[in-house]
Amino acid sequence: MKTLVIVGHPKVAESTTQQLFKAGVASSDDITWHQLTETLDVNLEQALLLQADRVVFQFPLYWYSAPALLKHWQDTVLTTKFSVGTAYSLAGKELGLVISTGAAKKEFQSGADEQFTMSEILRPYEALANKTKMKYLTPLVVYQFPYLTKLQQERLFINYQRYLTDPKFNHFVGQEKWITQRLLQKIDAEENAEKRETLQQIQSVLQDNVDELIDLTMTADMIRQDEDE
Amino acid sequence: MKTLVIVGHPKVAESTTQQLFKAGVASSDDITWHQLTETLDVNLEQALLLQADRVVFQFPLYWYSAPALLKHWQDTVLTTKFSVGTAYSLAGKELGLVISTGAAKKEFQSGADEQFTMSEILRPYEALANKTKMKYLTPLVVYQFPYLTKLQQERLFINYQRYLTDPKFNHFVGQEKWITQRLLQKIDAEENAEKRETLQQIQSVLQDNVDELIDLTMTADMIRQDEDE
Repeated sequence: MKTLVIVGHPKVAESTTQQLFKAGVASSDDITWHQLTETLDVNLEQALLLQADRVVFQFPLYWYSAPALLKHWQDTVLTTKFSVGTAYSLAGKELGLVISTGAAKKEFQSGADEQFTMSEILRPYEALANKTKMKYLTPLVVYQFPYLTKLQQERLFINYQRYLTDPKFNHFVGQEKWITQRLLQKIDAEENAEKRETLQQIQSVLQDNVDELIDLTMTADMIRQDEDE
Repeated sequence: MKTLVIVGHPKVAESTTQQLFKAGVASSDDITWHQLTETLDVNLEQALLLQADRVVFQFPLYWYSAPALLKHWQDTVLTTKFSVGTAYSLAGKELGLVISTGAAKKEFQSGADEQFTMSEILRPYEALANKTKMKYLTPLVVYQFPYLTKLQQERLFINYQRYLTDPKFNHFVGQEKWITQRLLQKIDAEENAEKRETLQQIQSVLQDNVDELIDLTMTADMIRQDEDE
């Protein structure tokens, strides 16, 4: 699966969130980190889009939408001829959003400071996916990055990598499978016997947990079925 | 009431909708028609905002939001210091939207082509008004301008003028009052006796209609009260 990350942050170098994200994709072949600048070559941009299976718009929320830098890209690159009309060049691809905001998660609801949910605020992107026949993914939203603990930052780092590379990132079993695959890759690559053994032990514990969870899920399903009958 | 119209259309000269709108404000002192360009003087823009009672963002819908030209203005002019923080310089002012779209009105609902209502799509602007303590006005949306009949265009022209100048543009009695005032102004200014008489006749018929409607509204209210008791 090929992922194109369109970074619409006007000041990537100054953003700690973006720097964390950038570190997460540095080592991957299947991810293209594409940082936008003022100048655009429409043909090149469209060619990048055509190569991708998953397209991710990554930006800080400025007045409840993307910065002008990314909006300019949308207005210029996503021409009617290319994205709708007879071509529908993006049809079947996935559209993901990685968004950062300085407001707290709890403010995005009725009666709270921001009044609307993040799903409501991001409707224009969902409508874009709908219009171009793309599959809209659940957005990955980072609230108040500076307040995250070290552990929360590490979890975010993993979630971000999964958001870019895991074909089924919002299924629980998908998550375990993704981590298992990553571990097996690491075990294969590890030359130190002792470290390899540690990784194998972790992998084994994880596998036990997954098996147990699958059992529990099946039991829960059976109980539910009994209740329905 | 002072109204500032911030025109975020990148090609005003080529747009028949914008040209119709522009004709509607040409003769007014209380309206500032402010056409955005690439270069911005933040202090000047903020000074314009401070003078206005009603601020109107006027733009064609590009990918379900304002063109990058207006988004750049939002990102640059509406600084935290100016619009929120301790200043809240826009608090109490009204925020209106005049939007044109090539899609039909009926497509903006669940199950139709555009999937979402216009209210949902425009949430980011409602959230902006909420955040800055502005009063969000019902947007004036022009669907498929090229398909409008001459009569529909004339109605739109009147509605647009009311949207910019009528303090109570979405109340029915407000509408009649606004038209009556306009007529009285025209009668005063008219030097041709015959034409003045025609205008007075129109004004008289209109006044009769308004009186009748106020009677009907009161009767309906009384019936409703009886039902409640």
